[in-house]
Amino acid sequence: MPTLRLALAQVNTTVGDLSGNAELVRRWTRTAADAGAQLVAFPEMTLTGYPVEDLVFRESFVTASRAAMHQLATDLAADGLGEVPVLVGYLDADGPPADSVRSVAGKGPRNALAVLHTGRVVATYFKHHLPNYGVFDEDRYFTPGDTLTVIRVGEVDVALTICEDIWQAGGPFTAARRAGVGLVVSVNGSPYELNKDDVRLPLVRRRAAEAGAAVAYVNLVGGQDELVFDGDSMIVTPDGTLLTRAPRFIEQLVVHDLELPAADVARPATEEPPADDPAGMRIARIPVTGALPAPAGPPAIGTIEKPVTDEAEIWQALVVGLRDYVNKNGFPSVVLGLSGGIDSAVVAAIAVDALGPDRVVGVSMPSQHSSEHSRSDAADLAERTGLDYRVEPIQPMVDSFLANLSLAGVAVENLQARVRGVLLMALSNQEGHLVLTTGNKSELAVGYSTLYGDSVGGFNPIKDVWKTLVWKLARWRNEDATRRGEQPPIPENSIGKPPSAELSPGQLDSDTLPEYSELDPILIGYVDGDLGRDGLIATGHDPAVVDRVLRMVDLAEYKRRQSAPGTKTSIKAFGRDRRLPITNRWREHGS
Amino acid sequence: MPTLRLALAQVNTTVGDLSGNAELVRRWTRTAADAGAQLVAFPEMTLTGYPVEDLVFRESFVTASRAAMHQLATDLAADGLGEVPVLVGYLDADGPPADSVRSVAGKGPRNALAVLHTGRVVATYFKHHLPNYGVFDEDRYFTPGDTLTVIRVGEVDVALTICEDIWQAGGPFTAARRAGVGLVVSVNGSPYELNKDDVRLPLVRRRAAEAGAAVAYVNLVGGQDELVFDGDSMIVTPDGTLLTRAPRFIEQLVVHDLELPAADVARPATEEPPADDPAGMRIARIPVTGALPAPAGPPAIGTIEKPVTDEAEIWQALVVGLRDYVNKNGFPSVVLGLSGGIDSAVVAAIAVDALGPDRVVGVSMPSQHSSEHSRSDAADLAERTGLDYRVEPIQPMVDSFLANLSLAGVAVENLQARVRGVLLMALSNQEGHLVLTTGNKSELAVGYSTLYGDSVGGFNPIKDVWKTLVWKLARWRNEDATRRGEQPPIPENSIGKPPSAELSPGQLDSDTLPEYSELDPILIGYVDGDLGRDGLIATGHDPAVVDRVLRMVDLAEYKRRQSAPGTKTSIKAFGRDRRLPITNRWREHGS
Repeated sequence: MPTLRLALAQVNTTVGDLSGNAELVRRWTRTAADAGAQLVAFPEMTLTGYPVEDLVFRESFVTASRAAMHQLATDLAADGLGEVPVLVGYLDADGPPADSVRSVAGKGPRNALAVLHTGRVVATYFKHHLPNYGVFDEDRYFTPGDTLTVIRVGEVDVALTICEDIWQAGGPFTAARRAGVGLVVSVNGSPYELNKDDVRLPLVRRRAAEAGAAVAYVNLVGGQDELVFDGDSMIVTPDGTLLTRAPRFIEQLVVHDLELPAADVARPATEEPPADDPAGMRIARIPVTGALPAPAGPPAIGTIEKPVTDEAEIWQALVVGLRDYVNKNGFPSVVLGLSGGIDSAVVAAIAVDALGPDRVVGVSMPSQHSSEHSRSDAADLAERTGLDYRVEPIQPMVDSFLANLSLAGVAVENLQARVRGVLLMALSNQEGHLVLTTGNKSELAVGYSTLYGDSVGGFNPIKDVWKTLVWKLARWRNEDATRRGEQPPIPENSIGKPPSAELSPGQLDSDTLPEYSELDPILIGYVDGDLGRDGLIATGHDPAVVDRVLRMVDLAEYKRRQSAPGTKTSIKAFGRDRRLPITNRWREHGS
Repeated sequence: MPTLRLALAQVNTTVGDLSGNAELVRRWTRTAADAGAQLVAFPEMTLTGYPVEDLVFRESFVTASRAAMHQLATDLAADGLGEVPVLVGYLDADGPPADSVRSVAGKGPRNALAVLHTGRVVATYFKHHLPNYGVFDEDRYFTPGDTLTVIRVGEVDVALTICEDIWQAGGPFTAARRAGVGLVVSVNGSPYELNKDDVRLPLVRRRAAEAGAAVAYVNLVGGQDELVFDGDSMIVTPDGTLLTRAPRFIEQLVVHDLELPAADVARPATEEPPADDPAGMRIARIPVTGALPAPAGPPAIGTIEKPVTDEAEIWQALVVGLRDYVNKNGFPSVVLGLSGGIDSAVVAAIAVDALGPDRVVGVSMPSQHSSEHSRSDAADLAERTGLDYRVEPIQPMVDSFLANLSLAGVAVENLQARVRGVLLMALSNQEGHLVLTTGNKSELAVGYSTLYGDSVGGFNPIKDVWKTLVWKLARWRNEDATRRGEQPPIPENSIGKPPSAELSPGQLDSDTLPEYSELDPILIGYVDGDLGRDGLIATGHDPAVVDRVLRMVDLAEYKRRQSAPGTKTSIKAFGRDRRLPITNRWREHGS
């Protein structure tokens, strides 16, 4: 059987950065070519970044994407890399973009993959299955393709597919079997979810069996806005053997020699869907002539990466998500309030891991209700991590408001949090830092925070982390440091002490909320699990506590409405990307 | 020809309020029955409200919607209204909800219309065309129906359709012609857009001609979160004659006697799609037996409403949008800062029109940079409108921050706006008001505002109103008051003076921005028109000003990223519901 030396480039693209992403392709193609690769595959929508959302409706952006793709083909050839076929994702549109992007949404734009070779775009493939759930809206943007593109590289037939194509049965993988290809390449923009790697490998194996072909899966890495991509690129043989699997969350080139069946040269250039499956895909075969000779160089690059613990995986995702949000948006540094509590301690540790201590400013902002340990634990954290530490007491500012306004109760509690917010934003304006918010998902869900107070900030690394998981992550991070002979970054005292907002004398979270060990499972069922009241009680929760918690979630939503000027997104911050209407009178607790 | 007395109930529903919406149906059906109606139609998703968004994925909500529909049928019969067929929109799902709503998005849930009669659901129709552009995401939520439901009411065949079904050619209206119906009922949840009424009437006429039948169009009214529904219910004959058209933005019952062709009783109960259109819809005919006798009562209710000016239409939409946001969310009152400028004056006038002066608190918050006219114009506005007026000087609080922090330039300007934000939120916490934000769309687009400062608040009535339109609306509102012999609410001085943020000595908007008469057309082309740089220059704008403005819009987006904790929505606030990625390096101005 012929050998194909295949390179998978697991790279970190940036949405909208056409020239930067093109540079990435040129750089990694050079490395792949140096390793003797005969075919290089980059992830979904490499050139535009993913997801581009409503940018697809801007004619100028579609035009720029197409032009950048042709320029990239030219540049690769000028780099002396024209002989390696390179698969690069981009945004295309049927016909002249002016016609297509002006039409009703969903008509025209294509989630596309180009084959670049000898300075030209020699073939394209348009994504067939469009995901339209969770974080995906692709029915809104793209017209599905109906033709499976099969390129002949050397003696081997290779079918091209994009992301969702591998998650749904039928379509491209069924057509790939009909086409008799030796390899299916799957290019992806598949966001990180906890334990998604456990799902991916069996999925790739199943499709390999369906197609009767090897499957090469290449995915993005890095943070992009709300999403983190984890890579996890891999190659699987038709019988399900895992040949190689890339480490997650980092850029990586995988190069592997695949023994693949020779293509049947007698097959026609195009095949219509079979009579018994008229909705099946067409097949179009395109020879990539003048391909490189079989490899004779050094062995493959890349081993089989082992899975890590949940805590290690989540920590990496949080670090990468923050680092890329800060860097891709061009912020020089971050600032956050340090209360001495667990949430701000964990966020500070994530920030230092992501950016280094020199780019992290931590501010202790004690009030008259702050305990001595709040200050000392914050100072201890600062010393352990080496971040830039400041102390700014807030009492004078709080007093100036109280002297001029008649306030009591919650209004006074919130005032303290808001003075801290003003203070952090003043530092941000004066020195250029991005403000980090530190509210955990449990707190956000039940509204245990102050609008325009502790919720001030441009990015919240732990907004999707339940409180009980915040503690687990803190313990894991400290133990991991100890294992590596380093100082644990998070003070034990911050982990061990009872949570408190310290906005009134002796205040504890448990005055207002059930214990987090009881609260979190209910919230997880309600928010992540879409369980209703009856479903929660059926899984063993105390009905009185369920009602109390659901009422808090509804009240929190009411509160958020006070700060969401006409947007629908508030609940997204703690849901599984649930888009709930704001004015929603639906009440699970029925009261 | 037989006569059918048809009632269209243009009502104001609330998302999630199943019992309140059911009450609406019972109340208006009573009125319609009293007027002798033989068929009553309510708008799209009457019972659940519209749009319900990701609530469709909650099994408990689907179950509750179905149960409420059966309860409503029973209640109508118990009310003595069982003999009138009533069309009510709701959320349904195929098979047991437990199976369908757990499946992949788009499988299972239905945007449905029920025919209630004699205490039962006697027929249903599932929406065929699902909109998935602009504010709509229905491909995410619903499975399209493939069967046109035709009910026989007395001697007349009536086809049922839902909203988008009328906006797209083919589908239900083509099937309605095949079915030979006398009337097509179109129930809608069609949001207000400027001049949409000018599009609706020709559209309804076109579909009436296509179906060869009369078309009765009934639409929601009222505000729901970000949307406003304008009603505009109407009836058109097959030859395009407009018989009746309801006033917009208010609840209204239209009752009209229609002379319609008798149904062909020989037609079969079901018809498959014709051989030359295999993708066409099935037809299912369902007799509504025991319908009421032909009317002999008083004449029809409802005339033909005339269109109004753009300013009058927009003002109504803004008033209704604010009123329903406040009332449906249960806020007792609103509070806003009054600067003496045009934006806050217009928002105050809208709020007073929406809620009455007793539910509006206006706060003048002068600083050392506030001019004398800022205070006097705010006081003048308060006197004209009768709102609850307060004065809270901010200098002591500003000084307490300046004494403790080392701030200069923009940081000091923003500090003043943020102290005002804290002050308004303190009043909100202390007294329960919803804070209104007053930034216009031009200001939001170019980022001429302070995060957590003047942007504080839960609802911004003019977030989608360009600055030049704010002035037009102010003039129109004052002239309209004069026409009606009332005092104009907005001080002439607020309309006439040059705009200023008054955050530094002698500051004017024109120090930073192009004149609004030059700025707004560029922003309108860029944001609303999706024009690129080249397109803007081609329409006659100065290239240097275009580049300057596009650069400001990009910088504004950068600024918003500092306050959007991981959400993608910032740009929605001033776009045509454009969902742009946050980390977007695409720059129209190319620098």
